[in-house]
Amino acid sequence: MKIPNFADIEEAANRIAGKIHKTPVLTSKSLDDIAGCNLFFKCENFQKVGAFKFRGATNAVMSLDNQSANCGVATHSSGNHAQALALAAKMRGIPATIVMPENAPKVKIDAVKGYGAEVIFCKATLEARESTLQEVLDNKGSVFIHPYNNFYVIAGQGTAALELSHQTEKLDFVLAPVGGGGLLSGTALAVKHIMPNVKVIACEPDGADDAYKSFHAGEIIPSINPNTVCDGLLTSLGEMNFEIIKSLVDDVLIATDEIIISAMKLIWQRMKIVIEPSSAVPLAVILQNKEIFKGKNVGIIISGGNIDPDIKY
Amino acid sequence: MKIPNFADIEEAANRIAGKIHKTPVLTSKSLDDIAGCNLFFKCENFQKVGAFKFRGATNAVMSLDNQSANCGVATHSSGNHAQALALAAKMRGIPATIVMPENAPKVKIDAVKGYGAEVIFCKATLEARESTLQEVLDNKGSVFIHPYNNFYVIAGQGTAALELSHQTEKLDFVLAPVGGGGLLSGTALAVKHIMPNVKVIACEPDGADDAYKSFHAGEIIPSINPNTVCDGLLTSLGEMNFEIIKSLVDDVLIATDEIIISAMKLIWQRMKIVIEPSSAVPLAVILQNKEIFKGKNVGIIISGGNIDPDIKY
Repeated sequence: MKIPNFADIEEAANRIAGKIHKTPVLTSKSLDDIAGCNLFFKCENFQKVGAFKFRGATNAVMSLDNQSANCGVATHSSGNHAQALALAAKMRGIPATIVMPENAPKVKIDAVKGYGAEVIFCKATLEARESTLQEVLDNKGSVFIHPYNNFYVIAGQGTAALELSHQTEKLDFVLAPVGGGGLLSGTALAVKHIMPNVKVIACEPDGADDAYKSFHAGEIIPSINPNTVCDGLLTSLGEMNFEIIKSLVDDVLIATDEIIISAMKLIWQRMKIVIEPSSAVPLAVILQNKEIFKGKNVGIIISGGNIDPDIKY
Repeated sequence: MKIPNFADIEEAANRIAGKIHKTPVLTSKSLDDIAGCNLFFKCENFQKVGAFKFRGATNAVMSLDNQSANCGVATHSSGNHAQALALAAKMRGIPATIVMPENAPKVKIDAVKGYGAEVIFCKATLEARESTLQEVLDNKGSVFIHPYNNFYVIAGQGTAALELSHQTEKLDFVLAPVGGGGLLSGTALAVKHIMPNVKVIACEPDGADDAYKSFHAGEIIPSINPNTVCDGLLTSLGEMNFEIIKSLVDDVLIATDEIIISAMKLIWQRMKIVIEPSSAVPLAVILQNKEIFKGKNVGIIISGGNIDPDIKY
């Protein structure tokens, strides 16, 4: 298993420059007062397709040689990776096929189709998803771009923390949410190379705490029936992601859905930016562990802003 | 009645510089596609206290001579002006007294108290509000800072459009929501001086269409039982505001609450910024009158972002 390193993140940053948004780092005095530390929010909710996922998908698509690219790309996802891969493929002018569960929200299906990707529906089970994707790969010869367990995806996600390091003064911590581990592993690779003394903390909802368990067990322990409001964090860690996480991440801290929702609303209210529940986990972790972060400079990767405005939190 | 002019707006801008945020102008390609024109959003939701009201309140408070200022300021408001005046007074180090209806939301009362202002409650009627305020003025000698029908407040609100004119290229229209008319009259004064060919359009919910009626009648026709989701736009036009509006505003257009709510959600979803319903009226007006704005460059003053995250729209 070839694992990306910092040079791969720098290469990714050069490869995707001009294709992605360089997102702002925002601060809020009132949130600093509430949290008891100095917060620096890297706002990937302002990224194209509304999430950091566009970085990794773009790096993966732009890394393909022409022959592979012409066969198109494919993935299974009903989340932000689906839209990210669809748009990245559109920008390169190659076909994308997205396998989505038949019960996926219409707004997400429409968004993927809006970027010109073909959507193939399957039953909402892991088996159906994998067998349907395999058919696509066999029939079309498409290149599978895994949502997180992928060399180029991880390197691409690391570019958010690389930018953050240039946009802020001395940080003590960098916090990122963890689902499959694409953002977290890329973040850890970037932070530990540029600022080795900065602690990298993974933040996870307690209803989907496979990273917490895996980190402490030293082996991947998959989620069984995860249950959390953070729909972006339901997946279990990927193997490549876990290799990086176990060697570079300092700790995994968990928060309850109740605190996550109030942290999300705090950010909506105080900063006037829309973030999705998954993005509120780091602030929730800080609010539940104030003594750890007291007076420190804390970078937070705001992973995305794709909420359904008709859901009542 | 002494009416402010452009020089008063320039003076206000100098007076409040460094005390207010210079807010960004944001754009969104996907909203441009939906609206059929080029939109430039002046984001006063990122202003201190989350609304443009802080500009006018700060200008009014900073304009007082020391003797008047030492007696403190007072107003009646349960909205953004209450918080704005409380914070402006705190920054000058003078007392503020805010008369609020006893049924005002706790979150708003707490916010005003959080800025150190004294809150005096009254019954939720116009008479009770005015008589209670009069008692405060008589007893304390405070200076009354009206939420919109005030020379310095109007001049202060005009500084948002003044900034917008420096932050954008050639505009064809500037749109602002209208309640009491403070923002609209200040905007019209600034725009018509700097860019006389730019059309200024007032945007109003059809459930509180007193500005629409007044504009066409040529005299103030107050709202009777206004009913709209736009809680910032329930008040009727002030006299000073109407004098400016009838001479400088090109038209008043109205939108339904249904379209206003979908415009608000569009902005939340596409731009990832939190805006309050009142701020969505201009986009709603555009969506209801696409032929007027087709292909044009349209500036929109986003008035504020103070929503109650527990309300379901």
